[in-house]
Amino acid sequence: MQTSSVFFAAKPALPPGCVRSLYTTQAPSTANDPNSMAAAGAGPKWAQKTIILPPQRRGCHLITPKITKEIAQDLSEFKCGLAHLFLQHTSASLTINENYDSDVREDTETFLNKIVPEGRSAPWKHTIEGPDDMPAHIKSSLFGCTLTVPITNGQLNMGTWQGIWLCEHRDNATPRKVVVTLNGI
Amino acid sequence: MQTSSVFFAAKPALPPGCVRSLYTTQAPSTANDPNSMAAAGAGPKWAQKTIILPPQRRGCHLITPKITKEIAQDLSEFKCGLAHLFLQHTSASLTINENYDSDVREDTETFLNKIVPEGRSAPWKHTIEGPDDMPAHIKSSLFGCTLTVPITNGQLNMGTWQGIWLCEHRDNATPRKVVVTLNGI
Amino acid sequence: MQTSSVFFAAKPALPPGCVRSLYTTQAPSTANDPNSMAAAGAGPKWAQKTIILPPQRRGCHLITPKITKEIAQDLSEFKCGLAHLFLQHTSASLTINENYDSDVREDTETFLNKIVPEGRSAPWKHTIEGPDDMPAHIKSSLFGCTLTVPITNGQLNMGTWQGIWLCEHRDNATPRKVVVTLNGI
Repeated sequence: MQTSSVFFAAKPALPPGCVRSLYTTQAPSTANDPNSMAAAGAGPKWAQKTIILPPQRRGCHLITPKITKEIAQDLSEFKCGLAHLFLQHTSASLTINENYDSDVREDTETFLNKIVPEGRSAPWKHTIEGPDDMPAHIKSSLFGCTLTVPITNGQLNMGTWQGIWLCEHRDNATPRKVVVTLNGI
Repeated sequence: MQTSSVFFAAKPALPPGCVRSLYTTQAPSTANDPNSMAAAGAGPKWAQKTIILPPQRRGCHLITPKITKEIAQDLSEFKCGLAHLFLQHTSASLTINENYDSDVREDTETFLNKIVPEGRSAPWKHTIEGPDDMPAHIKSSLFGCTLTVPITNGQLNMGTWQGIWLCEHRDNATPRKVVVTLNGI
Repeated sequence: MQTSSVFFAAKPALPPGCVRSLYTTQAPSTANDPNSMAAAGAGPKWAQKTIILPPQRRGCHLITPKITKEIAQDLSEFKCGLAHLFLQHTSASLTINENYDSDVREDTETFLNKIVPEGRSAPWKHTIEGPDDMPAHIKSSLFGCTLTVPITNGQLNMGTWQGIWLCEHRDNATPRKVVVTLNGI
């Protein structure tokens, strides 16, 4: 898994862009500003990391704990910003929905299977990878592969009942990659 | 309601992060740049505000005027940027659609009720809060709870016929919170 | 077509905001930083451009090559960031899906026409512009008009099989405007 961190330029895995960004925002204020440390700490920051999620069974899965665990250290450095999640696949999706009752996730899977026909009765031409192939592509566009969540005081600023879901639309799941980009101050 | 403003650091309600951000981008140029005022004014800025929308009846509602009124002062300070809206709920949604004919909003509600079954015929397991509970969750993921709109010359750069809609999917509506994050120069 | 570029402030078509942003981030470090060129190059940058897509027939169209061609020069200057696409219309949509087999795009159009009724059997009140008018609005909200894609080392960091689609939901297509906003370091 690629990793990156906002704050420690020494980390070998840091994308060069992110290192240079921090350097840029800190250098001028460090040279001229009595409050340079505070200023540097509050300068615009970027972090980007690719998280690999293990294969999940077909259906909707709550991944908030996994995502927040992976980005907690970086996230804590942002007072105000945005966290962008991007799923690099076309047969799964990301959405935000209820974080408590697993029935909500099961009912959502029931709904998706109800509106996207699958099997002999389905009109799809694209069936290269089996009956669940084309339905997975359609479900991916219905829910989407990208989310942006506000960051406030070092945390994802979601509602009490909101959670991040990975919806796996294939029967034979593979690992799924999510590129997380943090941007803020 | 939380409030914040991009430009006046003295405002008590400003999140510390946003204040420090402005301070950072202005301090170095003020110290060293003959064009410091212009430069400072053009520095990267962040603003974040939580808007509380009063309860609305079930259906689709045009909220562009309410949103723009709440953020107009901050928005006017951005020449180029992005405005991010995040609805902190799982039984309502945000979408962008036609801003003129209310029939479009009524027909959209008709469509949502048509594809998401409700009541005795519905297969939902999650019915804790009534027959409109699970359908509301599904509709929330279909349209989504987050929008990002470009900012150009101090205004939301939407098309002539585009408006921001709050879609309320519950029969007994509650106030809805939208976290608005502005980022730009 | 409006155009803008991140790096050359002299370009007349540059939005003033973007010019001043670059000036701001470069001026302080140039004055005080031995690594000013590198620092300037790595400073927070914004670029915004409106791309006009020619009329397309009703259906789903892969537009990744057109979009990347339009923004390639700007994109190459970002090591880490986000690319935001915003379609300024309510009867077409943007989505990310499979970039190889055109059957996937045709099957997706088949699906959209299947779940959104059109013609005499449809319950729509909004029919001002014909039978495809209201269905186009609904499809626009189902897929959405906005996308955000991570930028890594000067390129859109999408998955191997992902492409950007413009879905045209009207029978008589018009040119479509996409506002692209790049933000990063």
